[in-house]
Formats: sequence, C-alpha cells, structure tokens
Amino acid sequence: MPPAGPRSGDAIFASIERVNAELFTLTYGAIVRQLLTDLEEVEEVNKQLDQMGYNIGIRLIDEFLAKSNVSRCVDFKETAEVIAKVGFKMFLGVTASVTNWDADGTCCSIVLEDNPLVDFVELPDTCQGLYYCNILSGVIRGALEMVSMKTEVTWLRDMLRGDDAYELQVKLLKQVPEEYPYKDDE
Amino acid sequence: MPPAGPRSGDAIFASIERVNAELFTLTYGAIVRQLLTDLEEVEEVNKQLDQMGYNIGIRLIDEFLAKSNVSRCVDFKETAEVIAKVGFKMFLGVTASVTNWDADGTCCSIVLEDNPLVDFVELPDTCQGLYYCNILSGVIRGALEMVSMKTEVTWLRDMLRGDDAYELQVKLLKQVPEEYPYKDDE
Repeated sequence: MPPAGPRSGDAIFASIERVNAELFTLTYGAIVRQLLTDLEEVEEVNKQLDQMGYNIGIRLIDEFLAKSNVSRCVDFKETAEVIAKVGFKMFLGVTASVTNWDADGTCCSIVLEDNPLVDFVELPDTCQGLYYCNILSGVIRGALEMVSMKTEVTWLRDMLRGDDAYELQVKLLKQVPEEYPYKDDE
Repeated sequence: MPPAGPRSGDAIFASIERVNAELFTLTYGAIVRQLLTDLEEVEEVNKQLDQMGYNIGIRLIDEFLAKSNVSRCVDFKETAEVIAKVGFKMFLGVTASVTNWDADGTCCSIVLEDNPLVDFVELPDTCQGLYYCNILSGVIRGALEMVSMKTEVTWLRDMLRGDDAYELQVKLLKQVPEEYPYKDDE
C-alpha cells in the first residue's frame, strides 16, 4: 500500500479536538492586556509575544507533523505554501495565501484575510506600535526552526493599524541540511 | 410558533467557530509561564489568572446567551446544571457534572473529568500552591455576575496536585433580582 499522502487542512481541522474560537480570542486578549500592564513598553510586549509564540511553535510542529502527514517539503517555497494552506487551517481554522516572492525564492509574504485573534479588538491610542498578533510570527519562526529553517518573520500589514490585510513577511536566513545517522535506503 | 428551546451543548459546539485545542492549551500554558516569571509569587499568579478569567467571563456570557438559547434559569440549581452541561461543552468541548449540593441549594461542586487546559502540563516543585486552571473559576464568577449572581468559586480538587478529578466549588453569595424598566406584559 502506498503511504498516505498529506491531508488537507480542512480534513485535519475537522478531525482534531477544538475549543471555542471566542474563548481563544478573549484568552489571547487577556494575555496581551496583561503584558501591557506588566511591561509598560510596547516594544517589550511585542518581543514577549514573539517569544511566547516561539515557545509554542517549537512544540506545535510536532502536532502538525503528526496530524498532517506532511513529511518533507522539497524547498522553502513548498514550506510556505504548507504553512499557509495546511498550518493556518489546522490551527486557526482560516486559510492564508502566499505572495510577493523574491527572485531567489527565500522571501515571501503570507497574507491572512481572516484572523480570529483580533475579533472584537480595538487598540487604544496608547498602544501605537503594538503588533497585537505578534505571537503568530513567533509560532512560525519556532516551528520552522524545528525543521532546520532559520527565519525572520515580520509584519508588513496589520489591519489593527489601518491596513487592508494581515501580511507576514517570512525570510529564510539559513537552512541547515538535516543529517541522519543512517542512510535513507538502509 | 413557540420560541425555540435551549440548544444542547453538543449542538452548539458543533456549529460555532473553533480553534485547535492544542494551540489553546499551549497558549494558556504560555500565559501561566509568563505570569510566573513576572509575578514570582504563586499566590499572585493565582489571583491574576482569576482576574483574567473574570474579565473573560463578563464578555463570554454574551456569546453564551446568544448561542445557547438559554434564557432565564429558575434558580441557582438550574444555573449550575447549565454551566456544567452546556457551558463547558460549548466552550471547551467537555462536559462536567454537578454534585455535592448543600441543604439550601446555594453551594455545589462542578466536577470535570476531562480538562483541555492541562494536556502535557506537569508542574515543577517550585509551583506548589499554584492553581493552574484558576482562569476557569474566574470565568464562572464573571459570567454569573453578569446574570446577577454574586458567587465565590474555589478549587476543591485539582489533578495537577495529585487529586483524582477537577472539582470547583461554586457558592452563591448573593442574588440580585433583575429589575426591568418595563413590565413583562407591556
């Protein structure tokens, strides 16, 4: 029997355990509010959210690989597509698109039209400079690092800042070839 | 046509927007870790989690009333049943049971056998005294306050502390009769 191919994000999302999206949104909002209170500096909050996301990403990649049947992506291009089409669907129930590739295929944008993190969110004027969804960039960075891709992930557009979409730029800095203690055909 | 009756927790849970439970669990874990780092005192973390839960509860009650078709509970007894059977199912996808009623029907326990907040969680020895799931008690307290019930919610059993279940005691302190600016038959 041939090995099962990758499963679609929809199929995985339908089959896994889930919790109410509004509870998640409000819980995330409570984190951000807490950090704003504790840390005061918006820049520090951005950093902390990114770090929390990184810690989540390095663990979430296991669930992703286990549930998605995605094995090895041939290149960064395929990796970005899998994040957008399978990853976002599987974890947040939304899809994203990949665009704005640079010439050598090491930098692209992931664009979200729908973003459950920001439902009911309005930022007060005192939060200028806050990247409210910065946990997401951390998750992607952390997850990719576990599959040997060192990346830099930054927000190019943010609807809470008045832009027309959420756009995350993912730049591949370094790809460490995976080494095995055995040969593939052994 | 008669008004639609209350919907079951299962039916509501199936029809609402959801996110991946593991993402939620890891995100909640990231909050607790962050609070432990920032606040140092475990007692303070318990308080903060409860307060975050309260802030979530006072908003989540709207979603609950809108989606569940639950209107008015005749008494605290029915309220507790609705929280356990509809509320927990609707938001966390688990059911709970109500037990240990006192004689005058103002104090009971809600017992959870399954608790998605604690998947993969192990507490280090330095966290003795932490009520890891304290956000839940806050959510219940906040939600009930919005329907005019002042309550005290405390953990009696906690599996992370070696108990055999999660048991939350909910004690009704004061019930403010709802007042309407109009009469029901107007």
